[in-house]
Amino acid sequence: MKALAVDLGGSHATCALVEDTQMLASRTVTADGTTRLKSLLPLLAETLKAIRAEGCNSNPAGVVFSFCGIVDCVRGRILSTNGKFDDAPNLDLVAWCQEELRLPLKMENDARLALLGERYAGAARGCDDVVMITLGTGIGGAAMSEGRLLRGKHSQAGCLGGHLPVDFEGRACSCGAIGCAEAEASSVSMPEVCRCHPGFSSSALATETPVTFEKLFHHLSQGDRVAQDVVDRCLRVWAATVVGLIHAYDPELVLVGGGIMKSATRILPFLQSYVQQHAWTPWGKVNVASAALGNSAALLGAIPLLEGLADP
Amino acid sequence: MKALAVDLGGSHATCALVEDTQMLASRTVTADGTTRLKSLLPLLAETLKAIRAEGCNSNPAGVVFSFCGIVDCVRGRILSTNGKFDDAPNLDLVAWCQEELRLPLKMENDARLALLGERYAGAARGCDDVVMITLGTGIGGAAMSEGRLLRGKHSQAGCLGGHLPVDFEGRACSCGAIGCAEAEASSVSMPEVCRCHPGFSSSALATETPVTFEKLFHHLSQGDRVAQDVVDRCLRVWAATVVGLIHAYDPELVLVGGGIMKSATRILPFLQSYVQQHAWTPWGKVNVASAALGNSAALLGAIPLLEGLADP
Repeated sequence: MKALAVDLGGSHATCALVEDTQMLASRTVTADGTTRLKSLLPLLAETLKAIRAEGCNSNPAGVVFSFCGIVDCVRGRILSTNGKFDDAPNLDLVAWCQEELRLPLKMENDARLALLGERYAGAARGCDDVVMITLGTGIGGAAMSEGRLLRGKHSQAGCLGGHLPVDFEGRACSCGAIGCAEAEASSVSMPEVCRCHPGFSSSALATETPVTFEKLFHHLSQGDRVAQDVVDRCLRVWAATVVGLIHAYDPELVLVGGGIMKSATRILPFLQSYVQQHAWTPWGKVNVASAALGNSAALLGAIPLLEGLADP
Repeated sequence: MKALAVDLGGSHATCALVEDTQMLASRTVTADGTTRLKSLLPLLAETLKAIRAEGCNSNPAGVVFSFCGIVDCVRGRILSTNGKFDDAPNLDLVAWCQEELRLPLKMENDARLALLGERYAGAARGCDDVVMITLGTGIGGAAMSEGRLLRGKHSQAGCLGGHLPVDFEGRACSCGAIGCAEAEASSVSMPEVCRCHPGFSSSALATETPVTFEKLFHHLSQGDRVAQDVVDRCLRVWAATVVGLIHAYDPELVLVGGGIMKSATRILPFLQSYVQQHAWTPWGKVNVASAALGNSAALLGAIPLLEGLADP
């Protein structure tokens, strides 16, 4: 089966033609400062048509939109956008797709699609009980239980893994809750977390604007004590989150992805050892592993989504 | 439909005959110090036979065992007992039930059965997306999503709501994790939590051995500052846990039960207001309510369990 797939981030969109577990072609277009999805649609249609023309001899079965917000996959609507493409809930993308490409459209949250992709073509092959967590600007995730994607009544189930409170006296999170992992240990919270360290002003981090995880890991490798403290604290936050996800969803595998995992060699062994020691799994040990497909994961989730492989 | 039901606690067992949403008869027997389920089985068989004889004119469809541990409902085995009736995983209760009562047996975790009971006959009627949390000696719970009980690969899903870490730098929990609600704000952890309060020795609580929630709420009402601090902290722990459960499972209703809810008037309004303020639910507001059936909930879960009303 072939499909067209669009992974819609905040500042760019990747369009691809996929066939089964392979990516046949892809192009990334930038949103060029627009925050309205409607303004971007003509460019997306043009790009998808060009990519379809490249894969000439067969027709894709449909189009899949991967979106960084809350998506009602069943009814085909974007429900909540977290500030990105705020006009998306008002667009009838199914009709747009039919008109422009004469193809059916399915859409889903990007983390759920990434999990579907990893299960279909990546690090979760053969696994029916898997949780994914992505460490990046924010902390996202998705959960599959007994072969079914958890979606829930309002399409939020499984997606808010970065928003299980791990410090009930902690920082206010942009989601409204207190002490979420995203508020304590994501890229978006790092500048503030570092500034609050009592040793910050005498640390090499004080010269970095803003403090990124890349810079944190760099200064840690140079022996900076504050960087070490902050990274150690992030590791404990992520590890507690992973234990929470294991206790919530009962998976046999936890996949960790996202941009911060560029430093996987410093992160993964800690998470594995913490989970071995602290997760309550009398049946055995949960496998904690890196996601394998990077930015392609959500695009490669297109085929299993269209085929309904993880539907109830 | 009629069923026989057994709710097996640590120190006693309640046997009942239920018909649809009604309890027709019940008797509670004590475990009399035995920690072996095998020793208790003859008394259970005798009690169930007596109760069946009382409801003379019809045959129950089966027997349901509610157990305070991890239960594989599909295969009919108790998997993990947390120190209560440690011999249970080695017993073939299905065969025992067939032999003694000529009836099929189904078993399930007590919190899952309580949720089934509340949905069938109590405070969650008509609700397909509901999470239950029980505040007591430990903190337990269960989750239903889109009309299905979450069970998961190893029968742990949804049951460990008291073990989502809410303080990643907190107390070691008996489950092995760190900073679970059960370690921070359950009856079993209260004596230790109170002792750690800097004002404990000059508080009225210092004369209580052990410190129970009943005594905590009593001294709070007498103006004891330490009791106030400890209860306030427990409320924040429970509230963060409820937010975590909402973010994990996307329910429209959270039911709160358990022995500590004898003080519901002090607990429920706080939880409701905290959830209104801090849970991330762009679709609307989650209803937070008291469980309605108390100790009968798990027994009244027998019929929906036998009918498979919440199975995939």
